[in-house]
Amino acid sequence: MSAVMQIQTRALKAIHDYMFEKGVTHIMPVIMSTFTDPLSHKVDDAEIIYKGQRLKITKSLMPFKPLVLSALESAAIYTVSPCVRFEKETGTKRHLLEFSQVDIEMKDAKKEDFMQFIEELIVSVFSAVKKDCKKELEQLGRSLRVPETPFKVFKKPELVEKYGADFETIVSRMGSGLFWIIDHKREFYDKEDPGKLGSYLNYDLVYPEGFGEALSGGEREYEYEQILSRMKRSGVDPAPYRALLEVAKEGMLVPTSGGGFGVERMVRYLTGAERIEDAALFPKIPGQEVLI
Amino acid sequence: MSAVMQIQTRALKAIHDYMFEKGVTHIMPVIMSTFTDPLSHKVDDAEIIYKGQRLKITKSLMPFKPLVLSALESAAIYTVSPCVRFEKETGTKRHLLEFSQVDIEMKDAKKEDFMQFIEELIVSVFSAVKKDCKKELEQLGRSLRVPETPFKVFKKPELVEKYGADFETIVSRMGSGLFWIIDHKREFYDKEDPGKLGSYLNYDLVYPEGFGEALSGGEREYEYEQILSRMKRSGVDPAPYRALLEVAKEGMLVPTSGGGFGVERMVRYLTGAERIEDAALFPKIPGQEVLI
Repeated sequence: MSAVMQIQTRALKAIHDYMFEKGVTHIMPVIMSTFTDPLSHKVDDAEIIYKGQRLKITKSLMPFKPLVLSALESAAIYTVSPCVRFEKETGTKRHLLEFSQVDIEMKDAKKEDFMQFIEELIVSVFSAVKKDCKKELEQLGRSLRVPETPFKVFKKPELVEKYGADFETIVSRMGSGLFWIIDHKREFYDKEDPGKLGSYLNYDLVYPEGFGEALSGGEREYEYEQILSRMKRSGVDPAPYRALLEVAKEGMLVPTSGGGFGVERMVRYLTGAERIEDAALFPKIPGQEVLI
Repeated sequence: MSAVMQIQTRALKAIHDYMFEKGVTHIMPVIMSTFTDPLSHKVDDAEIIYKGQRLKITKSLMPFKPLVLSALESAAIYTVSPCVRFEKETGTKRHLLEFSQVDIEMKDAKKEDFMQFIEELIVSVFSAVKKDCKKELEQLGRSLRVPETPFKVFKKPELVEKYGADFETIVSRMGSGLFWIIDHKREFYDKEDPGKLGSYLNYDLVYPEGFGEALSGGEREYEYEQILSRMKRSGVDPAPYRALLEVAKEGMLVPTSGGGFGVERMVRYLTGAERIEDAALFPKIPGQEVLI
């Protein structure tokens, strides 16, 4: 675990350096709030009660990030934020009830801008770890490859047609480079393509060698009517998102692209760990009793 | 708020740079656990229930940090961790229900080692902000002074005798440099002076100009019998701390010193903000309804 934590330390330093160099504003996490990310897969809400008020524990920094960018002069923001997700699926080897996410959002960015930003970040982090953690990688028996850019891009509908529902795992096991899967029908805030309704301007980044999803994100909806309509289509109650809707109604919500990647999943990939639990000091595993 | 967040970004970068340069291992936050810091002042537990198991939300990374150092080869660790504290006192201008804490712990360190480490960190952070955020400081009307080291050290029992219970605020308003207050009777894990029972090898760092406490920490108890006896004296139920006690009983708990400082309080001081709410994007104020 010492070698794993050394690699985590080097990776995080490279992330902070990259963000600072790119002028990205560092904001603090949000842990509890009147709303949280609805996500697109079934996760039970983690709730906490303060003076009779029911608060949600953060599942991700969406949709806070576009609100922050609408209020600040910053061109981009990031945070390293813990997220709590009471996943219903168990035994996946890549889910924790609690994990840390590097959550990023860029103002006036298209999906291509964000994807390029992330590819450069990945190269920067992987290069730093490969260069400075030779001893640790050797100790862990991990041969780490710095990927070449640009990463391959696949369209989800085409992958589903070709490989079925388990497309991500299948494609992840096929290659040795990170790749993108674009066009996912999911959360109300991921932007629908105005030129091609039913298509979405979002993306997942996937690790190769079967490690699966690295990052999830997209261009964001910022127009009031469109957000409302997307909420209705997704069956999301607009009430908790009042703050977001009010800013959008005033035309003050800025267009953004963003995404988040899990620190433990990145460390798992960098170290080649069999299970996500091997990349966390106090792992909490869905379905299991919490020991510490 | 844009200027405040720029200063926060610069300060955090200086913190990460300093930690990396000093070889401190970066660990991830803990949000929920079977136990949390009992603290020495009255704070309601924030609880969450997962599959019938009652979990505490983190108030600080004590006593996790000595456990981590006992398991890793690292000489020191740090994290930037959100903490939730349902404070009973309201209207203080320096408490938030939720804040981020830079939590640090050093193996085999005495209090003097840790205090010097922090003084150097403070000088490094303040110098970076003063140098790189001239425009922002001017915009906020803040004249920031980089303090000289070593900081003054006061003994709590002597301050209490001289100024009464409100000693911290009174002394904080008197000077223009940061200072230490040592020897506080508080949590079971802060080490009692073996040579002078009833005295404690711990410390608070305090901002001047009335801004109050910056950091709290101490040398830690690491011997099984002494921890048990301190728990008994503090009226702390040992049951939730089983993991800590088991490691201590085996003689595997390493001696450490450490402490934590609030990011929002540091940003408040750096920016000269009247209230802590002015240094946070989504401030949650004790006693008030949470709006976002």
